[in-house]
Amino acid sequence: MLHIRGGTVVTADQTMRADVLCSADGKIAQIAPDIETPTQCEVVDAGGLLVMPGGIDPHTHMEMPFMGTIASDDFYTGTAAGLAGGTTSILDFVIPGAGKTLLESWKEWREKARKAAADYGFHVAITHWDDQVHADMATLVNECGVNSFKHFMAYKNALMVEDEAFLHSMRRAGELGALCTVHAENGDAVAYLQQDLLAKGLTGPDAHPLSRPPTVEGEATQRAITLAGLLGVPIYVVHVSTEEATNAIAQARMRGQEVYGEVLPQHLVFDDQVYTGADWLKAARYVMSPPFRAAHHQKALWGGLISGQLHTTATDHCCFCKDQKQAGLDDFTRIPNGTPGIEDRMSVLWHYGVKSGKLSPEQFVALTSTNTARIFNLHPRKGTISVGADADIVLWDASAERTISAATHHQNVDYNIYEGMTVTGLARKTFSNGKLVWDDGDLRPVRGAGRYLERAPYKRPVRYPLA
Amino acid sequence: MLHIRGGTVVTADQTMRADVLCSADGKIAQIAPDIETPTQCEVVDAGGLLVMPGGIDPHTHMEMPFMGTIASDDFYTGTAAGLAGGTTSILDFVIPGAGKTLLESWKEWREKARKAAADYGFHVAITHWDDQVHADMATLVNECGVNSFKHFMAYKNALMVEDEAFLHSMRRAGELGALCTVHAENGDAVAYLQQDLLAKGLTGPDAHPLSRPPTVEGEATQRAITLAGLLGVPIYVVHVSTEEATNAIAQARMRGQEVYGEVLPQHLVFDDQVYTGADWLKAARYVMSPPFRAAHHQKALWGGLISGQLHTTATDHCCFCKDQKQAGLDDFTRIPNGTPGIEDRMSVLWHYGVKSGKLSPEQFVALTSTNTARIFNLHPRKGTISVGADADIVLWDASAERTISAATHHQNVDYNIYEGMTVTGLARKTFSNGKLVWDDGDLRPVRGAGRYLERAPYKRPVRYPLA
Amino acid sequence: MLHIRGGTVVTADQTMRADVLCSADGKIAQIAPDIETPTQCEVVDAGGLLVMPGGIDPHTHMEMPFMGTIASDDFYTGTAAGLAGGTTSILDFVIPGAGKTLLESWKEWREKARKAAADYGFHVAITHWDDQVHADMATLVNECGVNSFKHFMAYKNALMVEDEAFLHSMRRAGELGALCTVHAENGDAVAYLQQDLLAKGLTGPDAHPLSRPPTVEGEATQRAITLAGLLGVPIYVVHVSTEEATNAIAQARMRGQEVYGEVLPQHLVFDDQVYTGADWLKAARYVMSPPFRAAHHQKALWGGLISGQLHTTATDHCCFCKDQKQAGLDDFTRIPNGTPGIEDRMSVLWHYGVKSGKLSPEQFVALTSTNTARIFNLHPRKGTISVGADADIVLWDASAERTISAATHHQNVDYNIYEGMTVTGLARKTFSNGKLVWDDGDLRPVRGAGRYLERAPYKRPVRYPLA
Amino acid sequence: MLHIRGGTVVTADQTMRADVLCSADGKIAQIAPDIETPTQCEVVDAGGLLVMPGGIDPHTHMEMPFMGTIASDDFYTGTAAGLAGGTTSILDFVIPGAGKTLLESWKEWREKARKAAADYGFHVAITHWDDQVHADMATLVNECGVNSFKHFMAYKNALMVEDEAFLHSMRRAGELGALCTVHAENGDAVAYLQQDLLAKGLTGPDAHPLSRPPTVEGEATQRAITLAGLLGVPIYVVHVSTEEATNAIAQARMRGQEVYGEVLPQHLVFDDQVYTGADWLKAARYVMSPPFRAAHHQKALWGGLISGQLHTTATDHCCFCKDQKQAGLDDFTRIPNGTPGIEDRMSVLWHYGVKSGKLSPEQFVALTSTNTARIFNLHPRKGTISVGADADIVLWDASAERTISAATHHQNVDYNIYEGMTVTGLARKTFSNGKLVWDDGDLRPVRGAGRYLERAPYKRPVRYPLA
Repeated sequence: MLHIRGGTVVTADQTMRADVLCSADGKIAQIAPDIETPTQCEVVDAGGLLVMPGGIDPHTHMEMPFMGTIASDDFYTGTAAGLAGGTTSILDFVIPGAGKTLLESWKEWREKARKAAADYGFHVAITHWDDQVHADMATLVNECGVNSFKHFMAYKNALMVEDEAFLHSMRRAGELGALCTVHAENGDAVAYLQQDLLAKGLTGPDAHPLSRPPTVEGEATQRAITLAGLLGVPIYVVHVSTEEATNAIAQARMRGQEVYGEVLPQHLVFDDQVYTGADWLKAARYVMSPPFRAAHHQKALWGGLISGQLHTTATDHCCFCKDQKQAGLDDFTRIPNGTPGIEDRMSVLWHYGVKSGKLSPEQFVALTSTNTARIFNLHPRKGTISVGADADIVLWDASAERTISAATHHQNVDYNIYEGMTVTGLARKTFSNGKLVWDDGDLRPVRGAGRYLERAPYKRPVRYPLA
Repeated sequence: MLHIRGGTVVTADQTMRADVLCSADGKIAQIAPDIETPTQCEVVDAGGLLVMPGGIDPHTHMEMPFMGTIASDDFYTGTAAGLAGGTTSILDFVIPGAGKTLLESWKEWREKARKAAADYGFHVAITHWDDQVHADMATLVNECGVNSFKHFMAYKNALMVEDEAFLHSMRRAGELGALCTVHAENGDAVAYLQQDLLAKGLTGPDAHPLSRPPTVEGEATQRAITLAGLLGVPIYVVHVSTEEATNAIAQARMRGQEVYGEVLPQHLVFDDQVYTGADWLKAARYVMSPPFRAAHHQKALWGGLISGQLHTTATDHCCFCKDQKQAGLDDFTRIPNGTPGIEDRMSVLWHYGVKSGKLSPEQFVALTSTNTARIFNLHPRKGTISVGADADIVLWDASAERTISAATHHQNVDYNIYEGMTVTGLARKTFSNGKLVWDDGDLRPVRGAGRYLERAPYKRPVRYPLA
Repeated sequence: MLHIRGGTVVTADQTMRADVLCSADGKIAQIAPDIETPTQCEVVDAGGLLVMPGGIDPHTHMEMPFMGTIASDDFYTGTAAGLAGGTTSILDFVIPGAGKTLLESWKEWREKARKAAADYGFHVAITHWDDQVHADMATLVNECGVNSFKHFMAYKNALMVEDEAFLHSMRRAGELGALCTVHAENGDAVAYLQQDLLAKGLTGPDAHPLSRPPTVEGEATQRAITLAGLLGVPIYVVHVSTEEATNAIAQARMRGQEVYGEVLPQHLVFDDQVYTGADWLKAARYVMSPPFRAAHHQKALWGGLISGQLHTTATDHCCFCKDQKQAGLDDFTRIPNGTPGIEDRMSVLWHYGVKSGKLSPEQFVALTSTNTARIFNLHPRKGTISVGADADIVLWDASAERTISAATHHQNVDYNIYEGMTVTGLARKTFSNGKLVWDDGDLRPVRGAGRYLERAPYKRPVRYPLA
Repeated sequence: MLHIRGGTVVTADQTMRADVLCSADGKIAQIAPDIETPTQCEVVDAGGLLVMPGGIDPHTHMEMPFMGTIASDDFYTGTAAGLAGGTTSILDFVIPGAGKTLLESWKEWREKARKAAADYGFHVAITHWDDQVHADMATLVNECGVNSFKHFMAYKNALMVEDEAFLHSMRRAGELGALCTVHAENGDAVAYLQQDLLAKGLTGPDAHPLSRPPTVEGEATQRAITLAGLLGVPIYVVHVSTEEATNAIAQARMRGQEVYGEVLPQHLVFDDQVYTGADWLKAARYVMSPPFRAAHHQKALWGGLISGQLHTTATDHCCFCKDQKQAGLDDFTRIPNGTPGIEDRMSVLWHYGVKSGKLSPEQFVALTSTNTARIFNLHPRKGTISVGADADIVLWDASAERTISAATHHQNVDYNIYEGMTVTGLARKTFSNGKLVWDDGDLRPVRGAGRYLERAPYKRPVRYPLA
């Protein structure tokens, strides 16, 4: 048993002085201002610290095969790094390879993930439509604990799904009580612009943002929302990075449509200047999709988060080491797309969000944990400090500073996009299912301790658009 | 003690099977799936019912002197009627009379309200600006438990406040940690249009909506938000009734501004057709400001509630009996403005919101209780089912039907604007501070049992607009 | 020679009392308040009438092979009907058939059109992308007098063009100084919805609008604008019928993008109630794409026309007789899409636009003639009353009434969608290249008198989006 | 007589090679490609030059008494400077002084303006409402050639008009066929912010923009449009300087409301950085209201001009010399508000608008001359090159460069806000009523040659908002 004593509990709902008692099986057993420590119970002093639900990162790609290589953080190293930053659960993506069924791929990912040090679940990508997909979706939802599917409107001739297939998938997911998520960029436009830029001799990382302008994301977001609206099903837009997409989401919600938006902290703090300069490798590190944007988009994203029109924060954690990035030395379209960040998400959001006065601590918890748990049906098991919930807890020091560096981080990648950034707010201790796995600099991950999160389908009624 | 057994607890946060134990002093003592009944404890069977926090109505006018008469429901009859409908707290308005200071008026209202059968608090209206107002605001906030002030942009030459005074008041409230609320209609335009309509011989209730068109509200809402934004203070817009105002609020929130919006259920279900027809008295019943609108505005209001850009539901409960309404028989501008509704707010919102599939039960709790408690700093004492909270609890029958009628209602007014409407969803039992005050048709209000709710100032940091 | 005496000349620019003298070769030779009639000159009395440039209909489909049949008005009958209504020029569409090159198809259409009674030009449709298309576009622009191309985002597996091909075509057109036009509906969504509706047993005309909801048009319009914006080329959206599309156009224009929108009068006056009722054939007459919409869309279209954010009026004139419509008796997707209307466009727009006070006579001229001439580079030869222009002139009676009927119309189709509608405003006389071809009920079309309008490419600078 | 030979005539409508012949009485007599020079006719070679209608500046303040001083350019020097820049007419403002009636003030201004070197007309300001104002408005419209009135929503306790008075004035103007114009800033908010800034010790020019933030203009613009919309009358917003105001105008127009917007070139090229820096006097030169804005507002203004949702360009020419500006050395609220610019308006707009590719030459003519003539009912006498129009003509060299400087300008003020700016595009020759008054550096103004422009009321139908 574990007695977290003297802290201030912060949930999405409220902030209160309270102790937390966790049972031996890793559940929260009691929350009260002053709990008497049971016998044979470990006591942790949380004086001066915030006691918050562990972070949930709804968007990671551990050891993903992509663009001819494999992401360098595996399920063990990646989840361990997350624990160091206060993140205790992830939702990763099953991406069916060529010729593989959804079910085969899900099984493959299940195997790969057994080494995880923190709890994990899966979204499964739908990249085409046929009867097998139709059947497998039901199996995944009803038997495999999957309640969300992913669709790529980008990556033409690879992962991209046509609108008609997307409609079929959304209809099917709606029937099954699963949620569709979408990477919204117009893949045709990106393919066209990439070829056009290469033809003009623009081969460097600075061409990357030119190949995926903001309107390309805004357009696809609008389209995805329109298609979901035709069917009356909810839609979750991953890595919203533009004012255009934010507005499309907000406007749809104002019409009563059920649309959710996810933001990556890196889009809140970096702009498109990261792609300039003579240092190819430095610029290449920031090559991810959607790319970093002109600064005014950040203001729109903050507005979305503050107002509640955007809902979650994720990382799209997908590490490629320097030598992996080099594959695109002569052709920016071959630079593996992805940035690391699972370890720093919460610190960066606290620093730029809470410390700056934009967000309250309660909003921080909602945006890093609770909303994700709700949207993907992990709540109240995850995402909150309440009796019966998993004891995934982070003791947060709201005023401590640290300087982010690859020299000290735990991610399996040889740089850090936040290198040199000093942030206020950090995880002093992290508990995963009641076990202390991060203790103020001392990372104690247990290979394989992470459990697969079976997520039941939602019983949500389909909310058709307002008549 | 009280053991509410076998129910399904619904909060803004979640729905769960749980018993609720209330202590003798009217607090919630325990929430757990299966509580063993203590000795000497009353047991109430909540099987098949939803156990929800009692409603909070943030906008009532009990026994208010207005337009030459006095609202017919007093603090006793009005709060009692609220209990019958599941509403256990109100926030009423202190409206300083001519020559009275804020403090004198607050004291007067405190006296009047002692007869209340349910808990109550006060907003205080600011109708002009001078040093006395400046000083009294501090006294009210620091010594009298008032943390919100009201401003009328309408009612020229009566309650209307000029923009410059409004700015002074908002600045002062911001310093004190209090929240400004606003009735947003352009009073100059209303005065002009009223005179214009009367001059044209349009004297009946059908001229009322013509004297306050939707854009008059949209304009003032935009203006209030702009002024609040200049100072970086939050603002709460009462009785939002139009698409224009809803959009103004949503857009400001997307810019990161802290703006809240309140909706009256009557604006969700009635349109401007209520003012037509030959029955003068029937039309006059619906004369309130802002008036009922063309139907498309309802869609916008629902969108705002669903998306979380509008936050609370209130009634603006202000009863005038038929003979009081007759004062405006020859001149619609003399019809006392106001509609009854405290008793029916929750049923109407459940029926049109939850039963129709637009809102979840959790959203219903947020919109009828929790959000109001948060915004006006009553949370977590009010607005939730949590340990330590006041035992203001309603046992809700989600599937029972009733037909609303003045013949059966408990409001002290001789008609009901919802007369004949059959709604699904009603309060089976209502507990106020742990006491059963409504038992399936049997209303047991206790005169004077209501307590004054002292509301502390907010410690919120002032959030200046995003740079 | 021809002396039009005593009339009031109305152009897009101004209204003035003036006579008009036309030369023997069919040009306008002089415009002045009081011209002395030359010898051997026919005199026409225009007293009390408006002297306006003949209408230009930028969107017709004469004798088009479509959906297994051929549109019933051919280039002779269709242009003749236009003359009766005051329309003296059309722009029709070359739609390349399977296996035909652009150039072959253009030649085919040129042959078919030789019988025309009024002047005509062609847009050419681009339905796929390859090197032949790339080459033919240059030939068409540089040698064939074509300066506009058409793209269908709808009609999947038939005319629909993918986004990438659309981008190639727009780039090519931009290089050549030609303008791209687009039918903006999401073809994937339409295909999906059609199959879904048929599967549910919804086979009648009332399913037609359900298969193409307003958002399907709004989405595609937004997408087309986004794609054009990536290239910095202008785009012309045909038959804008929704609030969503109108707003997309207006917003792009406010960003400095060059976007034009076309409206069909039928969308201004009919709503989706035309598809209801027991009379299959009556409903089938209104089957065109985009379909008729809920009434609030009309308000948006008027707003676009009044404010100058929408620019032209056309008819999409495409006649299918009753027995042709019957092809879809068991399956609404087989009803040939199209409505007649070239004869009534100007009257309907005058009645609902000018007579109602929404538009000025100058705006009417701009919207029926001048703007089209400018956008498609026919100005100042067409679209205005100025010295040197073609003497395509209509003498308009602004106050005369007529009741529209198939019994009296000149279109080669056995019904009229405006049947029974009484409108104010009609063409008393129409002159085509100085020849009187319509004289107050007496239609005198000359087979083959119409000339092919060679339209030079625009020298417009490409206006990239505002930095 | 005057024969302008060999030039390219540009109107709002078209561009064409044409000669222009002007009669002895200063009218345009003939326009044709090749005119034979009459006997005794002066010939001017316009080869390589554009022949455009002289500019009309709808917003100047010559010798205006304001803030304790008098604007330094009088009607003679100011109009002369305009001629040097190609501007041949102005509309100035009659601002009634304390205790003066509208009519008395109009007479006073008429006297002052007799010295003008170019044609001029007047708007008359309405600063309060009473029966005398009601009566004088009719006299001014019916007998004095005034068809526009001005309203200040700013300058509280000085020129500011309350909403109710503004409504009365708009109704009256609507009855008379006159147009209302408005300076849209919230005067209450400005007054509040000025006092607040001074109280904080912020007394320099850099406090000026802080006292009138963009939203203060956006709010007032929205309000003015709302009020005009209630009455169904047109409204013209002077010096639109923000994205917020631009959007408010565009949105109202999309609802079918008749709203016009005016832009000053200085707002297109300067941003709020002009108020920074140690040089007090330099910053003070830019003190005008509304102030210069953050750069993104410029983009919105350009978008409005390009799309046709903003309509005219003006200067708000109001010169105060350095020593006059010094009055506010210790208090920015005492710096006389105003910037010079009548001489440079057309060059600056050509350079930044046409040369940059944003505007066509035709749009340039519309924005500098034609639209103003139309909106204020001077067309076709002014604002176009057409037979019968006044021979106010500028020969424009589209490719010549000049560097703007107070050392060479003709304005009676000892600095130039554009000092050192090199622009392409300048007036080679300017003709006022057929007389050569500017000849490539040689200014030949004639004191008193300017004529008063009587402007008839509009016969426009009142266009009520779309039902």
